[in-house]
Amino acid sequence: MKKKTTIYDIAAKLGLTAATVSRALNDNPKISKNTRQLVLDTAMEMNYEQNKVALALKSGKSYNVGVIVPRIDSNFFSSVIRGIEEELHPKGYHVIICQTNNQENIEIEKINSLLNVQVDGILMSISNANLEDNMGFNKLIRSKRTPLIFFDRKKDLKGVSSVTIDDFKGGYDATKHLIDQGCKRIAHLSNDRQFEIFNNRFLGYKQALLDNGIEFDESLVIETMSKVVEGRKSARALLDMDRPPDAIFSSSDFAALGALQEIKESGLEIPEDICIVGFSNEPFTKFMELTTISSVDQFPMEMGKVAAQVFLEEVSNTQDTKISKNIVLTPELIVRKSSLKHKER
Amino acid sequence: MKKKTTIYDIAAKLGLTAATVSRALNDNPKISKNTRQLVLDTAMEMNYEQNKVALALKSGKSYNVGVIVPRIDSNFFSSVIRGIEEELHPKGYHVIICQTNNQENIEIEKINSLLNVQVDGILMSISNANLEDNMGFNKLIRSKRTPLIFFDRKKDLKGVSSVTIDDFKGGYDATKHLIDQGCKRIAHLSNDRQFEIFNNRFLGYKQALLDNGIEFDESLVIETMSKVVEGRKSARALLDMDRPPDAIFSSSDFAALGALQEIKESGLEIPEDICIVGFSNEPFTKFMELTTISSVDQFPMEMGKVAAQVFLEEVSNTQDTKISKNIVLTPELIVRKSSLKHKER
Repeated sequence: MKKKTTIYDIAAKLGLTAATVSRALNDNPKISKNTRQLVLDTAMEMNYEQNKVALALKSGKSYNVGVIVPRIDSNFFSSVIRGIEEELHPKGYHVIICQTNNQENIEIEKINSLLNVQVDGILMSISNANLEDNMGFNKLIRSKRTPLIFFDRKKDLKGVSSVTIDDFKGGYDATKHLIDQGCKRIAHLSNDRQFEIFNNRFLGYKQALLDNGIEFDESLVIETMSKVVEGRKSARALLDMDRPPDAIFSSSDFAALGALQEIKESGLEIPEDICIVGFSNEPFTKFMELTTISSVDQFPMEMGKVAAQVFLEEVSNTQDTKISKNIVLTPELIVRKSSLKHKER
Repeated sequence: MKKKTTIYDIAAKLGLTAATVSRALNDNPKISKNTRQLVLDTAMEMNYEQNKVALALKSGKSYNVGVIVPRIDSNFFSSVIRGIEEELHPKGYHVIICQTNNQENIEIEKINSLLNVQVDGILMSISNANLEDNMGFNKLIRSKRTPLIFFDRKKDLKGVSSVTIDDFKGGYDATKHLIDQGCKRIAHLSNDRQFEIFNNRFLGYKQALLDNGIEFDESLVIETMSKVVEGRKSARALLDMDRPPDAIFSSSDFAALGALQEIKESGLEIPEDICIVGFSNEPFTKFMELTTISSVDQFPMEMGKVAAQVFLEEVSNTQDTKISKNIVLTPELIVRKSSLKHKER
């Protein structure tokens, strides 16, 4: 079947933006007569069916969508962004990306900056666990014309949709797997638990211990930033304990990699002495030459696509009342060498 | 020494954008009287010295700068972006990032999209080697008010500054190192040589062969996209030759990793049977557990900072004539296990 012509196709052919094409097709006076005629002729030539799309168009759209992430240099976030782009690009939207480098004050700046350039919506993963206290954020939520969708790192805010994975289940499954491998003293590299995602991974870990008759030991939980060097430090602290753990569930693959390096350098074997499970299924976890790292796949491409679909629904919603959704995707534990002492049944 | 207060500091304190603060300080009528007074009071309170910065300010600045890259999920590009942000953020600029996924038509869309949101400049690494043929691009260059700076993947265009590394030297040094290791049949995983950077790496490779009395053999050069799976395919093709190579210089670390995997799986040893050198010094090259991969460091953070400095110069240039610069940074070969048969003197 031949693909339908979109305003994007027309825009690409003419070297114009989708916004310009949209305006031309909708007789916006900002567009010169010549350009309008060129767009109309091209649309005709390419068999563009305006009516269906035209219904969805509101005037004044910029066809830019902002995405804010803590960092772009993780496969997780770059894959979510790719998912968002794959979903929105065929609809004529451009994705503008901002990173906060995990700095709270920058987050508000980025939001204001995107609102200033009049994006049609903002999809974001928060860097600031106390975000709702800030005026910039409330301004965004109050402005009904700009849909806001959280993914991954979210806050429960009224009127704001979110797409997350079931982090509790991710933490639970990872820990249960370690218990099934015979591990009895399972440490957890957590992260800032003011963030729901990290708190939920921790709660899943704790519940799996309790459900399997293993006492929860606070001293085995170490708050660790998602960096290789931080994972090394935490592993060092665990190895220096009187009774070191026999397994580590890390809420970050980067920290898991650091732990693996530190443990190997101390002469211990993985998984024989200590099992490791990470979180996010970053590509390097499977590229390891000797000890591939078990991890929890968060299906970031799908997360991005679903978040984009929620945005499309919200932006085409002509009702005054906002509908907000909280979509929870299911993660999947990927077992690799770093935690496989025995084949599981 | 105490850091000078910037408009960014004032903006952060008040939860406003730097652009709003700048406008308020410059009595822009768009800003309400109350906001202006608030900004002025805060500026006074924070000992802000307006005059120095004010001189550099032109009216109508958005304080947004666009960055366009082929992909964000490579350490090279994300590090360049980090360098750009570190340089521009203290000056009150926000960096807006777009990726093209290496698609030429998307590149023009992104440029137009950024021009539409009135960025103060665009810093980009091109995805389309034939970029200057396109009308969107010419429009950008003609519009004198928007500085354009290329980094890494550039085209030689009049009036456009660029920051690159000496890719010829990178290719030459990598190949010379392999020759010094005793390799005599050195293959090259090239990439699309319509791009100057890839062509220069190839020319450096070729010149090193010629300078050392090794005949250049076209059949040992394979065009390979910068992906693990593509590196595998090219390595397979090389291994299937009647006389396979004894070394591979890859213009991409991702392709180098694929080659390494394919060669190991075929039962050959690295570096004993085949030496490998990549390009970019991606973090995984040093994280490898067994065979860390030699690579060429391109100093991406520095590249980003220098590109940002060039932008700042251009944006504060009040002359009618554009000054363009072509800055070439020096790369550095990092020798690791994948190519070290013998310690070099």
